Amino acid sequence: MKSHIQKHLTSYKEKYKNRGRLLISCPDKPGIVAAVSTFLHEHGANIVESSQHSTNHEGGMFFIRFEFECEDLLAKEVKLEESFKKIADTFSMNWQFTYAHNLKRTAIFVSKEPHCLLELLWAWESGDLMTDIAVVVSNHEDAREVVESFGIPFKHIPATKDIRQEAEAKQLQVLKDYNIDVIILARYMQILTPTFVAENPYRIINIHHSFLPAFIGARPYERAYQRGVKLIGATSHYVTDDLDEGPIIEQDIERVNHRDDADDLKKKGRLIERTVLARAVKWHLEDRILVHENRTIVFN
Amino acid sequence: MKSHIQKHLTSYKEKYKNRGRLLISCPDKPGIVAAVSTFLHEHGANIVESSQHSTNHEGGMFFIRFEFECEDLLAKEVKLEESFKKIADTFSMNWQFTYAHNLKRTAIFVSKEPHCLLELLWAWESGDLMTDIAVVVSNHEDAREVVESFGIPFKHIPATKDIRQEAEAKQLQVLKDYNIDVIILARYMQILTPTFVAENPYRIINIHHSFLPAFIGARPYERAYQRGVKLIGATSHYVTDDLDEGPIIEQDIERVNHRDDADDLKKKGRLIERTVLARAVKWHLEDRILVHENRTIVFN
Amino acid sequence: MKSHIQKHLTSYKEKYKNRGRLLISCPDKPGIVAAVSTFLHEHGANIVESSQHSTNHEGGMFFIRFEFECEDLLAKEVKLEESFKKIADTFSMNWQFTYAHNLKRTAIFVSKEPHCLLELLWAWESGDLMTDIAVVVSNHEDAREVVESFGIPFKHIPATKDIRQEAEAKQLQVLKDYNIDVIILARYMQILTPTFVAENPYRIINIHHSFLPAFIGARPYERAYQRGVKLIGATSHYVTDDLDEGPIIEQDIERVNHRDDADDLKKKGRLIERTVLARAVKWHLEDRILVHENRTIVFN
Amino acid sequence: MKSHIQKHLTSYKEKYKNRGRLLISCPDKPGIVAAVSTFLHEHGANIVESSQHSTNHEGGMFFIRFEFECEDLLAKEVKLEESFKKIADTFSMNWQFTYAHNLKRTAIFVSKEPHCLLELLWAWESGDLMTDIAVVVSNHEDAREVVESFGIPFKHIPATKDIRQEAEAKQLQVLKDYNIDVIILARYMQILTPTFVAENPYRIINIHHSFLPAFIGARPYERAYQRGVKLIGATSHYVTDDLDEGPIIEQDIERVNHRDDADDLKKKGRLIERTVLARAVKWHLEDRILVHENRTIVFN
Repeated sequence: MKSHIQKHLTSYKEKYKNRGRLLISCPDKPGIVAAVSTFLHEHGANIVESSQHSTNHEGGMFFIRFEFECEDLLAKEVKLEESFKKIADTFSMNWQFTYAHNLKRTAIFVSKEPHCLLELLWAWESGDLMTDIAVVVSNHEDAREVVESFGIPFKHIPATKDIRQEAEAKQLQVLKDYNIDVIILARYMQILTPTFVAENPYRIINIHHSFLPAFIGARPYERAYQRGVKLIGATSHYVTDDLDEGPIIEQDIERVNHRDDADDLKKKGRLIERTVLARAVKWHLEDRILVHENRTIVFN
Repeated sequence: MKSHIQKHLTSYKEKYKNRGRLLISCPDKPGIVAAVSTFLHEHGANIVESSQHSTNHEGGMFFIRFEFECEDLLAKEVKLEESFKKIADTFSMNWQFTYAHNLKRTAIFVSKEPHCLLELLWAWESGDLMTDIAVVVSNHEDAREVVESFGIPFKHIPATKDIRQEAEAKQLQVLKDYNIDVIILARYMQILTPTFVAENPYRIINIHHSFLPAFIGARPYERAYQRGVKLIGATSHYVTDDLDEGPIIEQDIERVNHRDDADDLKKKGRLIERTVLARAVKWHLEDRILVHENRTIVFN
Repeated sequence: MKSHIQKHLTSYKEKYKNRGRLLISCPDKPGIVAAVSTFLHEHGANIVESSQHSTNHEGGMFFIRFEFECEDLLAKEVKLEESFKKIADTFSMNWQFTYAHNLKRTAIFVSKEPHCLLELLWAWESGDLMTDIAVVVSNHEDAREVVESFGIPFKHIPATKDIRQEAEAKQLQVLKDYNIDVIILARYMQILTPTFVAENPYRIINIHHSFLPAFIGARPYERAYQRGVKLIGATSHYVTDDLDEGPIIEQDIERVNHRDDADDLKKKGRLIERTVLARAVKWHLEDRILVHENRTIVFN
Repeated sequence: MKSHIQKHLTSYKEKYKNRGRLLISCPDKPGIVAAVSTFLHEHGANIVESSQHSTNHEGGMFFIRFEFECEDLLAKEVKLEESFKKIADTFSMNWQFTYAHNLKRTAIFVSKEPHCLLELLWAWESGDLMTDIAVVVSNHEDAREVVESFGIPFKHIPATKDIRQEAEAKQLQVLKDYNIDVIILARYMQILTPTFVAENPYRIINIHHSFLPAFIGARPYERAYQRGVKLIGATSHYVTDDLDEGPIIEQDIERVNHRDDADDLKKKGRLIERTVLARAVKWHLEDRILVHENRTIVFN
C-alpha cells in the first residue's frame, strides 16, 4: 500500500512543482491587490486562483489567498520571499508563501475509536490528502496493525490524566523527531495542556463530536440524547487553550429522531465526524484557512 | 382571500369527516396493539396509518398513534371514547381521541418580524395547514394590514417587561374569547410568565432562532457570528417554564461562511426559522407529537 | 407597502452609490489580475471583493469578478469604461461594468401558482432583493390583488399554445415599455418561442420543478412519484432555446418518502422551488454569474 | 480482525435470538392490524416496533412491518409460520417471517474502486451491518489483500463483455457454494444479464453514481460536469432487467460548484456513494424494505 501512496504523492509533487500559494492578512487599504498581483506578475508567477475577503467590522481587515504557477519555482523561492518583504512592510502584512511540492508533515493522534483515522488514511490513499503522514501517536495499541499496514510508524504513548506531563513530553519529542507541521486529533480523547498547545499554535486540528458551541466538553451524544435534539453535529476546529473554543473550520449535521438512543447518535455521528474532519484537514493542507479573532476565513 | 381559505377548510372537513386519530402513551406490556386494534376494528374503525415507538430506557414506555376511518364517526365519538376507557385502564394509558373535522383553533403571537407569520398564513392559504387561525395577537401594529387581509381578527396588546402582567391578562382573555387550542409564537419577542405557561401546557409552540441548545437566550445570531460557526440553525419547541428548554419538535440548519456578518446570518436564518416552525405546527395540528420526559416523539 | 420598499431601495442606492462591479471572461494569460487591479487602483477604485476562476479545460479560460468602491463613481463611469477598453483589447476580454445604484429592472412572469412570486415579493420587501420590480405579467388574473398591493403594475396577457405569437408580441411590448433588464419566470407555465428567447439572451431566469436533467419537460412531480425517487429537486436556470437545457444557476433538493404521493411532492416541492429561484435571482442581480459553454460560474 | 467481527455477530445473535420480523403486503381491508396483532399476541410475540403504510392509489394496498420479541422463538418458528397461513389466506397476503439470529449471507461484487467495499467492511467491523459477508467477487485482483485481511474469501472471476456468460456461470456457482441471500454491487462495473438477474430477483442491490433518473448509464460524472449541475447524487436500487431502472431504495446528494471538474465530481461522489449504499444495505438486512410496482416502501 505504501508504494501506491508514494506514487500519488510523487506524481503530485511533480505535477505541482511550480505551484505556490501566498496568504496575506493586513489592515484594509487601497492598492493591495494591484501591488501584490503586479509583484507576482513581475516575478513570473501566473495567478491561477485567488480569493479575497475584507470586512468593515473590526477596523477593516483584508485577507487574500493567491495560488500561482511559476516556472522554475524551486530556484526562485528564496528570492521571491526576500523581494516580497518590501510590499509586506508597506501594507503591514502577515504573510506566508507555501509551496505545493513541499508537503506538510502530519502526525495523527488517535485513541480507541478508529473511524476518523481510517477516513484520513483512506482519503490519503485515494490521493485526496496531499501530505506526508509521518507518524501516528496513540494512547492505545488498537490502531497499530492498520497504521503499520500503510507503512506509517505507530507510537504507543500511554496517556492519562495522571501522567499527562510525561506523556506530552514524549509526544513533543516525537513531533520533533518527525519534524511535524500539523497535528490532527482524530478522536484523541485526552486533554492537551496549555504548554503543549502553546508549542503548536494553529497547527492542531481537532474534531469535536457535537455542533459547537452546543455540548462543549465530555459525552456530547449522551447530552444530545437527553436534550432530545433532532439533529446531531460535528465540528472541526483549531485547538487553543480554551477547551472546544478554538476557531471553527467546518461543521456539519445529520438528522436523528426519537427512535435513536445515545448509542445510535454515536454511530450516526461517526459518519459526519470523519467527513467534517477530512474536509478541515484538506483545506488546511491546501493553505486555504486564515484565522482572525477566533474565526476562520476558509477560501474553499 | 377569506373565502378561498374557507373553501379549503370546508372541503377538508367534508373529506375527512370520518377521520379520527388515537394517541396513546403507557408502560410497555404485551398485547397493547392487539387490544387497541381489535377495539378499533370492532367499532368499525379501519386503521389507515399507525406508528409505534417503544423504548427499553426509562422503564419501558410504549407510544402509538393510529389514524383511522370510521363510517358515521361524528355520531360515534362519545360512545367510542366511553368504550375505550376499559382498555385504557387495563394498560394505564394516557390517551386521546381527536377528530380531523374538529379543526384546532389557533392564535398566532407575533412582534415586528413578519416572516414566520407570513409563512403560516401562506401555508394556510395553500391548504397545507388545517386549522382555524382564530386570532393574531401582537405587541406591535405592523402586521395588522396583512392579517386583516386574510379575514383574521388582529389584537394589538402592548407588552413590555414592565406591563407583562396586565398584557398577559389581556392575552389570556383573548385566548378564552376565541376558544384557542394552540398558541404559536411566530417570533414573538416577549418572555411569557410561568403563570401564562402553566395555563397552556404543551399548547404553546415557539420558534427559537438558533440550533438549541446552542445560543439559548437573546441575540443568538450575533453570538453565532462572534463564535464563527459555519452553520446556523432554528429550533421549534413546546414552551415550558425554562426558557428555551422545552421539548424540541424540529430543527434545521443553513450553511454560512466568513463572508456573512451578523445581519446576513439573520437574513439567512429567517428562511429556516419559517420552515422549521411551519413543519412543527403542521405535525402538532395533525396530532403527530407525543411528549415524554422533555423529548418529543414525532410520528411523521 | 410601496413606501416601505422604496425606503429600502433608496437607502441601498445611497449606501452603495460608489459601488461598482466588473465582470471579465477571456482566454487565460499571465498578468490579467495585475493589469486590471492596477487599472482599478489608478482610477481610485478600491477592491472590496474579488473572485477568480480559471480552467485548464476548454483551452484555458479566465473569469474574474471585482466589486469595488470608488469615490464619486457616478461622475467617473463613462471615463472608467472608456479607459478600460485598452486593457480589454489587449486580453481579448468579454467585460462589463455594472453599478449597484443602477438597479436592474425586473419583470416577473407567473401563471396560477403564486408561491415563487410571493417569495420574490417577500424577499424584495425584506430588503433582500435589490431591484426595481417594474411589472408582473400573467396569463391569469389570480395574482392581481397581491401584486397591486405592492404597488406593482399587473398585466394580464392571456397566453395559450394557440395564441402564443400574439401573446408574446404583447409581452415584448410590455418589456419595452417598462425598459426591462431581467425576466423571471416564477412558475410561468407557457413555453416561450425561440424568437422571444433570442430577444432576451441570458436575461430570462426560470425555475424548473425538478432536479434537472431528471424529469425534463411536463409534469415532473407525477413522473418523480412514478419513478419512486427519494429526493425531489428544483433547478433555476437561464432560458435558452432548448427546453430546460439552459445553463443551471442553482439546484436544491428535499427528502421525500413512500408516504408522499404526487400531490405531496408538489407541496414539498414548492418550498424548494421558491428558495432556489430566489437565490438564483439574487446572484443575478448582484452580477455574480458568468456563463461559459452552457455552464455557469457563480461567484457567491 | 475476524475474531473481532465474530464477537459482534455472536453477541447480536444471542441478544436478538428471540427477535422476529413479519412483513406483509396485501389488498387493503378492515381488520388486518387487529387480526395480525392478535395472532402475534396469542403466540407470545410482543410487538416492539411496527410501521404501516396504505395507499388509496393502485387499488388500495396495505403494507405492514412488525418487529417482535418472542420467548423461545427458535423452537416456535415453524409453528408460527404454519399457523399464520390461515390469516394470510384470508387477506390474500404476501408475507414473510424473518429472524434476526438467522443472519443473511452476503456476497459483495466489486471492480477496481474500493470505496464502497471499504465502507461496507468498516460498517461491518463496527457492528453496524448484521450479516455474514460470505464472499467477495471481483473481476480484478486489487481488493484481495484487504478482503482477506477481514478473513473473507476473495474470488477473482475475470469478467468482460466478451466472456460475460462464462463469468456469470462461475459467479452463480460461487453464490450457490456460499449459499448467498443478498448480492451487493459495490461499484461492480459489469452489466449483468437478464438470466443472472432473473435468478436473484430483489436480492441484488446496486449503487449508481448519479441522482437517478438523471444520468442513467455510463460515465455519469462526466455527463454531470458537461451539464453543469450544482449537485451530484448517488442512488441505491434493486437491480432489475432494465438498466438503472429498478426500485430506488435510497438517494443522497452533495453540493458542487464551477471549480469542480469531472474528476472532482468523482471524488466528492465517492463520499455519498458509499453512504447511500451502506444505508440501503442496512435497511435490507433489517427487512425494512417492501417493493410494490417498482417503488420501495422503506420502514426506517
